[in-house]
Amino acid sequence: MARVSGEVTMANPRADRVRGVAALTRASVRARRGQFLVEGPQAVREAVRFAPETVRDVYLTVAAAQRYPEITDDATTAGLYTHLCSPDVLVAMSQDAQGVLAVARPTAATAEDLLAADRQSRLLAALSQVRDPGNAGTVVRAADAAGADGVLLSAGSVDVHNPKVVRSTAGSLFHLPVATDVDLAEVAHAARDRGLQVLAADGGGTTDLYQADLARPTLWVFGNEAHGLGTAERELADAVVRIPIHGRAESLNLAMAATVCLYSSARAQRAG
Amino acid sequence: MARVSGEVTMANPRADRVRGVAALTRASVRARRGQFLVEGPQAVREAVRFAPETVRDVYLTVAAAQRYPEITDDATTAGLYTHLCSPDVLVAMSQDAQGVLAVARPTAATAEDLLAADRQSRLLAALSQVRDPGNAGTVVRAADAAGADGVLLSAGSVDVHNPKVVRSTAGSLFHLPVATDVDLAEVAHAARDRGLQVLAADGGGTTDLYQADLARPTLWVFGNEAHGLGTAERELADAVVRIPIHGRAESLNLAMAATVCLYSSARAQRAG
Repeated sequence: MARVSGEVTMANPRADRVRGVAALTRASVRARRGQFLVEGPQAVREAVRFAPETVRDVYLTVAAAQRYPEITDDATTAGLYTHLCSPDVLVAMSQDAQGVLAVARPTAATAEDLLAADRQSRLLAALSQVRDPGNAGTVVRAADAAGADGVLLSAGSVDVHNPKVVRSTAGSLFHLPVATDVDLAEVAHAARDRGLQVLAADGGGTTDLYQADLARPTLWVFGNEAHGLGTAERELADAVVRIPIHGRAESLNLAMAATVCLYSSARAQRAG
Repeated sequence: MARVSGEVTMANPRADRVRGVAALTRASVRARRGQFLVEGPQAVREAVRFAPETVRDVYLTVAAAQRYPEITDDATTAGLYTHLCSPDVLVAMSQDAQGVLAVARPTAATAEDLLAADRQSRLLAALSQVRDPGNAGTVVRAADAAGADGVLLSAGSVDVHNPKVVRSTAGSLFHLPVATDVDLAEVAHAARDRGLQVLAADGGGTTDLYQADLARPTLWVFGNEAHGLGTAERELADAVVRIPIHGRAESLNLAMAATVCLYSSARAQRAG
């Protein structure tokens, strides 16, 4: 176990470096620098363990370093340097870090990677024009839990490196490839070429979820939280699938619907 | 269809009545007055349609009254008076109303009602010490969608009439009975007396969700979003059930887990 020396190396909350990290809450700064914020012990733990190659710097308070020794251990094993910071510095960099913060670089996962022949993806989730950070992050988490091979976000979706999205993934952003800015029509065609069926989830769908053949390799397409899927997107799919609503609720929200669909696929694929 | 006269009857955002409605964002005011806020067209529509006996007043802007004539129609049919307000008045009463607001009285649903012999409840969801408004509201919505007979919240849970909870239910608060401040031990015993099995959902459970006999009438117990279920609560259950995690995610969040469990029960009960 790495020993935390307890020597604070960053103590000035007004230092340029501190301001530079804090500025990563802005999309324009993230885009220009090719970096994003990873906030909180859970997300940073998963980043240094599962995707250390993406991590540029780790910042901890002394208290957090003592409380989460595995973070320093994994960072050290990966050859990363951890900066011990005063509590003031951590708070100046992020209000949501709970003493633990990392700066990481986006991975370069692409739709082509996820649909490469040698990857043999069996379960993929695509999001069309999803705007709410919590919804997008939760779908990434659901896809991870369901054992999906990756997630794809269409052009026009929320920035997956927005701090709220990163937090909502609860570390799953570092567990499976997430391709951004994809063209859904191209993705649907490529998926079909690889033997995946394309299922669009929509409350107005004509196929009942429990009647669909979910044992087959599947690309799920989920729509915008407020407007659902457009006609063009529904036409990309082999079937438009409806989750049955047994009570009086009008619908499920996007994250709930995606969780039900992805878990139904996982169950059917693993039973088959 | 009721005609909206277009005559604004409330135009002073500093009127006592307006301040009185706005004060319902505070738990102490809700408790003292026995009233709560219903914000936005979806929630108000469901309230006046499915639970008009709980609605005390409906407030709309002229634009909202024209856009959602069904709200005025249903309110009129139910003998409710709708107040046409200036946009200033609506915003002074609530920032989240989108032009449509109601003040309602909590229903008096109790655990005894939900477990009465003549109700023959087959699917119930109980929440233990749930604190996050969005989670609590989303579980009520999931229970509604899955066709559950009711929801029970333990003492120590978030106030289900908190505006954020009401919004998160997306109208489902008015679709099925929600009993609050219940004693979970009593509820579990009463449920078992009525022939329901008691299943606790927990990431550390010993029974796989897909191995459980979900066709039986079931009371599900879900724990706090951060700490899960305590030992005492797990011991109330006939089985502690784990949703399988196929990828590297540590867990699902409470709302996702409850949605998967309740939908799995609904599916098994309706197939059987």
